[in-house]
Amino acid sequence: MDQLLEGARSPFCPKFHHAVELIGRRWTGVIIRAMLNGVERFTDLSNTIPDISDRMLSERLKELEEEGIVEKKVVAATPVRIEYHLTPKGWALARVIRDISAWAEEWGESG
Amino acid sequence: MDQLLEGARSPFCPKFHHAVELIGRRWTGVIIRAMLNGVERFTDLSNTIPDISDRMLSERLKELEEEGIVEKKVVAATPVRIEYHLTPKGWALARVIRDISAWAEEWGESG
Repeated sequence: MDQLLEGARSPFCPKFHHAVELIGRRWTGVIIRAMLNGVERFTDLSNTIPDISDRMLSERLKELEEEGIVEKKVVAATPVRIEYHLTPKGWALARVIRDISAWAEEWGESG
Repeated sequence: MDQLLEGARSPFCPKFHHAVELIGRRWTGVIIRAMLNGVERFTDLSNTIPDISDRMLSERLKELEEEGIVEKKVVAATPVRIEYHLTPKGWALARVIRDISAWAEEWGESG
């Protein structure tokens, strides 16, 4: 186990605490996963994620912006298009999201 | 990115949704991390994790039992000792917890 737990050796770590609850906040994980899969427009995110309200999606994206995980981009088109892009900090979550996906695939139940 | 996202290719997946919000539920991530580090008694978990109430710790451990991630063990000693052990499904989270720890260490802020 030593190798597996490298970087996670102390029983409690405030940075880990903040990170795990940020990623696991309602809807946040699925938003990040959709963005890693190339979904970048507000309307596309809203359509990709079942049951999320636009208000909740806005709120979560704002939180992710504040955390430096997501950048908002206003594209000058007609009509104006709002896009969200992952920052390097956001892309760095790819491994975490992949591993949670693999674990869920092997052990998980939906619901 | 293709390789990194293996197993996370579809933009939305209910099993992933359930898993990420289970792991990220308030206190759950830090409980699992402490157990991966060998903290197994109720009182030790309570002492390891700052600010968690015994009621909240019980509740979270019960949820983790229901999810098949943790097993409760009553040790016949004087006084009786309550221990919690990770199941194979729980140990399988080691990689996820390690990766979140590494991400938090590199990019995160506590708080």
